[in-house]
Amino acid sequence: MERLKRIREYGIHIGSLTAGKKNQITDVTGIRVGHATIQHGDINTGVTAILPHDGNPFRQKLLAAIHVANGFGKTMGSIQIEELGNIETPIVLTNTLSIGVASNALISYMLEHNKDIGLTTGTVNPVVCECNDGYLNDIRGMHVTEEDVRYAIEHAAEDFEEGAVGAGTGMSCYGLKGGIGSASRIIDLSEKNYTVGALVLTNMGCLEDFRLDGKPLGRLIREREEENTQERDRGSVIMILATDIPLTERQLKRIAKRAVVGLTRTGTSLGHGSGDIVIAFTTANKITHENAKGIYNVKMVHEELLDKVFQASAEAVEEAILNSMVAADTTIGRNGHIRKSLALYADLFEEKK
Amino acid sequence: MERLKRIREYGIHIGSLTAGKKNQITDVTGIRVGHATIQHGDINTGVTAILPHDGNPFRQKLLAAIHVANGFGKTMGSIQIEELGNIETPIVLTNTLSIGVASNALISYMLEHNKDIGLTTGTVNPVVCECNDGYLNDIRGMHVTEEDVRYAIEHAAEDFEEGAVGAGTGMSCYGLKGGIGSASRIIDLSEKNYTVGALVLTNMGCLEDFRLDGKPLGRLIREREEENTQERDRGSVIMILATDIPLTERQLKRIAKRAVVGLTRTGTSLGHGSGDIVIAFTTANKITHENAKGIYNVKMVHEELLDKVFQASAEAVEEAILNSMVAADTTIGRNGHIRKSLALYADLFEEKK
Amino acid sequence: MERLKRIREYGIHIGSLTAGKKNQITDVTGIRVGHATIQHGDINTGVTAILPHDGNPFRQKLLAAIHVANGFGKTMGSIQIEELGNIETPIVLTNTLSIGVASNALISYMLEHNKDIGLTTGTVNPVVCECNDGYLNDIRGMHVTEEDVRYAIEHAAEDFEEGAVGAGTGMSCYGLKGGIGSASRIIDLSEKNYTVGALVLTNMGCLEDFRLDGKPLGRLIREREEENTQERDRGSVIMILATDIPLTERQLKRIAKRAVVGLTRTGTSLGHGSGDIVIAFTTANKITHENAKGIYNVKMVHEELLDKVFQASAEAVEEAILNSMVAADTTIGRNGHIRKSLALYADLFEEKK
Amino acid sequence: MERLKRIREYGIHIGSLTAGKKNQITDVTGIRVGHATIQHGDINTGVTAILPHDGNPFRQKLLAAIHVANGFGKTMGSIQIEELGNIETPIVLTNTLSIGVASNALISYMLEHNKDIGLTTGTVNPVVCECNDGYLNDIRGMHVTEEDVRYAIEHAAEDFEEGAVGAGTGMSCYGLKGGIGSASRIIDLSEKNYTVGALVLTNMGCLEDFRLDGKPLGRLIREREEENTQERDRGSVIMILATDIPLTERQLKRIAKRAVVGLTRTGTSLGHGSGDIVIAFTTANKITHENAKGIYNVKMVHEELLDKVFQASAEAVEEAILNSMVAADTTIGRNGHIRKSLALYADLFEEKK
Repeated sequence: MERLKRIREYGIHIGSLTAGKKNQITDVTGIRVGHATIQHGDINTGVTAILPHDGNPFRQKLLAAIHVANGFGKTMGSIQIEELGNIETPIVLTNTLSIGVASNALISYMLEHNKDIGLTTGTVNPVVCECNDGYLNDIRGMHVTEEDVRYAIEHAAEDFEEGAVGAGTGMSCYGLKGGIGSASRIIDLSEKNYTVGALVLTNMGCLEDFRLDGKPLGRLIREREEENTQERDRGSVIMILATDIPLTERQLKRIAKRAVVGLTRTGTSLGHGSGDIVIAFTTANKITHENAKGIYNVKMVHEELLDKVFQASAEAVEEAILNSMVAADTTIGRNGHIRKSLALYADLFEEKK
Repeated sequence: MERLKRIREYGIHIGSLTAGKKNQITDVTGIRVGHATIQHGDINTGVTAILPHDGNPFRQKLLAAIHVANGFGKTMGSIQIEELGNIETPIVLTNTLSIGVASNALISYMLEHNKDIGLTTGTVNPVVCECNDGYLNDIRGMHVTEEDVRYAIEHAAEDFEEGAVGAGTGMSCYGLKGGIGSASRIIDLSEKNYTVGALVLTNMGCLEDFRLDGKPLGRLIREREEENTQERDRGSVIMILATDIPLTERQLKRIAKRAVVGLTRTGTSLGHGSGDIVIAFTTANKITHENAKGIYNVKMVHEELLDKVFQASAEAVEEAILNSMVAADTTIGRNGHIRKSLALYADLFEEKK
Repeated sequence: MERLKRIREYGIHIGSLTAGKKNQITDVTGIRVGHATIQHGDINTGVTAILPHDGNPFRQKLLAAIHVANGFGKTMGSIQIEELGNIETPIVLTNTLSIGVASNALISYMLEHNKDIGLTTGTVNPVVCECNDGYLNDIRGMHVTEEDVRYAIEHAAEDFEEGAVGAGTGMSCYGLKGGIGSASRIIDLSEKNYTVGALVLTNMGCLEDFRLDGKPLGRLIREREEENTQERDRGSVIMILATDIPLTERQLKRIAKRAVVGLTRTGTSLGHGSGDIVIAFTTANKITHENAKGIYNVKMVHEELLDKVFQASAEAVEEAILNSMVAADTTIGRNGHIRKSLALYADLFEEKK
Repeated sequence: MERLKRIREYGIHIGSLTAGKKNQITDVTGIRVGHATIQHGDINTGVTAILPHDGNPFRQKLLAAIHVANGFGKTMGSIQIEELGNIETPIVLTNTLSIGVASNALISYMLEHNKDIGLTTGTVNPVVCECNDGYLNDIRGMHVTEEDVRYAIEHAAEDFEEGAVGAGTGMSCYGLKGGIGSASRIIDLSEKNYTVGALVLTNMGCLEDFRLDGKPLGRLIREREEENTQERDRGSVIMILATDIPLTERQLKRIAKRAVVGLTRTGTSLGHGSGDIVIAFTTANKITHENAKGIYNVKMVHEELLDKVFQASAEAVEEAILNSMVAADTTIGRNGHIRKSLALYADLFEEKK
């Protein structure tokens, strides 16, 4: 399958900040993303893993925050992120009914790499996020295996595909095909460049509401398609924000909330049936598992500098959502259900101003 | 001063739902709004009071919820709304440094109307919200008096002005004049019509970010004005949602969060320095102060019906924000500071689509 | 193994309210509890399942709330309980590293009993809570199977054992043996009797801190034992509160917080390394999965009546914790680690006043 | 009036940690406390101010957190503490109906000392906490003046009285006289001594529930007094924790929650009608108002060290509560209402153990 163009290649530029080199979350140094795509017949699902840094995240934890914009979701690991303000495993994305198997696989992976867990030190907090891909996927079949999760983790790399891959294989977004999308922004703080990267798993919204850079594209598509089915805003969206800016957990929480700004700009009113979850982390402040020194230095930006970070987060998420759609090929799934690619409506983009 | 047109009178219709008769928060039966406008020389400030129902709110409390989208604000009364899920006083809006005097006035008013407070029953929870009107107003002068607060409460009516009145007198929004705005939506749930009304006090955003129904109007205005001052997204916005739909406190909280959808659609990324606060209440479930029966019936809609309420809330808030701007006249304030009316740029609206 | 005596059989009465007939959570009509105990050699672990009512909880959801007293824990399902205010599955308790397998088993069980999940309706929110039994159990071995989880659910009954059984098999509490404990209270509200029941899985605290009805029993035991090892307050405690009182989700949250009152009275300062989680639900307000009527009646007690419910919750949890200890037999586990039964120190109880 | 003995002078030692030199919150360097006591006839009320450090807190903000254990309270300033994680004013305590006047006075004081507020910089977040002293005080009379607030702030010193003084003048606690209490603990972290100090304003609980170091003293007093009035657990308690330990806002929030451990050990079940509020701050991490450097270093202890801080907080609060009672003289107030001093029952303390 040929790579589909990303939204920027259609001349659509979201916001005013500069994108990073790859315009992906992996513009933040050390971050890697891996997919396991599971696709045959009625089965359209998979796993995506985000490795937060080059080392062992259990030994070197990263400051993190979680924000629940709408909580009709089953994301695991939220309680401990909230209490301790850190993540200590890769972040695994998959379908809703596979969170158990994903969690089990992630725990096994962490045990293998940390021989002290459960013996001389405590346990580990697996972070697993999910969306419901049941429209295109035989989700009741629970087809994700522990090997798939392991595969996604072990094949994580700086370069990764977007669209209908990994956990995004069977996802739907605004009545069209959704999936994995990413984007990044570079900002200058105190005369140094920093990166904010976003990766999203999109599975929310109904066509009617979809906006492309403010333009009511969903309504235009609906007119052309003459579809009359008023679909519900079900599904979910997972938004991961990564940065190398020195931030505290509280600041990361503030930033996580701005992912929702990018999200709502694509048109959704955060439907009742959606699990809209954001996890934000920084690679700048690593916390060692062992208490070697007692007192640690953490760096933080002055609060007055956050506005730029907010803007970067909102822009990156908005663009990542558009990428998750336009880079996803039309998919025929369970029972012949079809989700068309946003790319089919590219001619409507041009009409824009 | 002649009444300025509201956004709908320019042919701009936000969203797809029908507005109520007045297209104001007072379309919800029983709600009244009053202003005290204080304006002379460098003084541009005031008070707006929202009376939640016809009776005594201390005796008949209303189920309510508060949502803090960004907490750089001083709103009073939030802790008890959160714990008990109700409001028991009018909601008073004013400038930031006048919350003390407003609170004092509101307490006195409640004591006067409830002779048992502090004697045979507990105390009362005054709800006072604020924005910083210091750009146009000599806010350090603390010019709001207890009499002003009393005036706003006692002159509350179903008909009320929008724009640069009451608490909105000195407010700025997206670099233009902000103030008080309102809108409403009618929705059908279980074959009965219900109303969702919004009233906002707008004082947030920078011009660059402003969007009118998706269109980047702020950038167009900036081009024309050739202003180069990059202003910060300071200030705040208070959003009040009222409805007659039977809802629980938890459901009201979910609805309050959707006010932020309407807010972000006007362009802001919820700036660091902003206090973005939502209070939502329903007139459908009144709770008596006295425990007469022990066990009460509360009505609630099935969760599946909330999507429509979410949409109504987002639409009403977005339109209310636009009304707060376009209905506010250009104001010259402290030190000759000027905030122009959005109405001056009406020709730019037409270019739309 | 002979049943060990419960704390009340030693003449210790916690608080002043009357206990229910069995003095267990199953005094609340409809609730059943089942265990799967896994015990051989270094393996000391298991599963406990709480069935919230007689019917299918996915079809008839119960209003519920979750409170995180300390969040060093991995409990699953919290986000949706918080958002929707209900539970829709049995609650499963197990060891920390088995949450994946428990979740998978619970999802499979729910799919089997609800053929529409993932097809014509949404997904399901499995609620799985955990403590770390690694001191007595080879937790890294991940010995809990999906069959064990199924067994616990399917063997749930009104009569159930306490102490070192089910999920409690390998747990430690205040340096002694912990496990499963339960208690209940009957209160009169508006001239009708209601029941509050508690079930706890205890795995927290260090000996030094343990208090039995206010008495510093931990210090007395330490003096006798002449142990010098200063242990950390690790581990966790899961507290489940069930009642038939008509309450809203917000009220249930308030009640959940009072479980912590009972907990802290046993001496802990809520140690850093502990996941102290409370789930409270009522059988009085059932919410149908299908939206049959649109508008529903929910019953709630007047807020003024809650004080008695608070007291009942605190008392039931305190007594349940003591039962979890005194009813648990001395256990020799992994690497010969020993946790003694509190029952061995019964002579110290008598000294009391 | 002669100073009454503190609880330690009766031979009661709470917990196992060492107290600071004065065993007061002012053992934390830089902290000062001032009172304004207003007492004549039916008027028994006042103001207590806590100055968090020697300098100007608006220019040098302190990292802080707020925890609401029960939210039937009107504390002001909570939203911004939660969002920004700091305090920037003295903390003022007074009676419930005087929060408006206290807020107004505190704002004026801050404006006076910071000429840029509301002009070239933003506004200020006044922190005012309250309890309802209506049983002993003519609270409806609103007798606290702005001058009283100013007096308390300007007379703050390292040495300060406890008991029925300042904001504590008219407070009741466990059916006895409550008021202002304080205590401190010294702990060793990473080979350096740090201080945790607590100051409480107590106004909660009913006699029946009162425990003195675990002993059910309330029941013993009731037996002697043969009072039959079953009073409600109304009122509130404000708990301020100060320390010089390097902590982040998130860590401070965890510590704030442990104040409630100390509170519940004195017997209350956190009654419905109570506003139980904790504010915790550290003097170790000062944040400048101006953004001079862009990136700041903040110090934090490794999370593993927090257990000792938790213990210190719980112990200090428990002892501070006892001090607030035993150091408060019997008071006859409004309508001849009487609250007796705990000191009258000193003979019952001795029976202990």
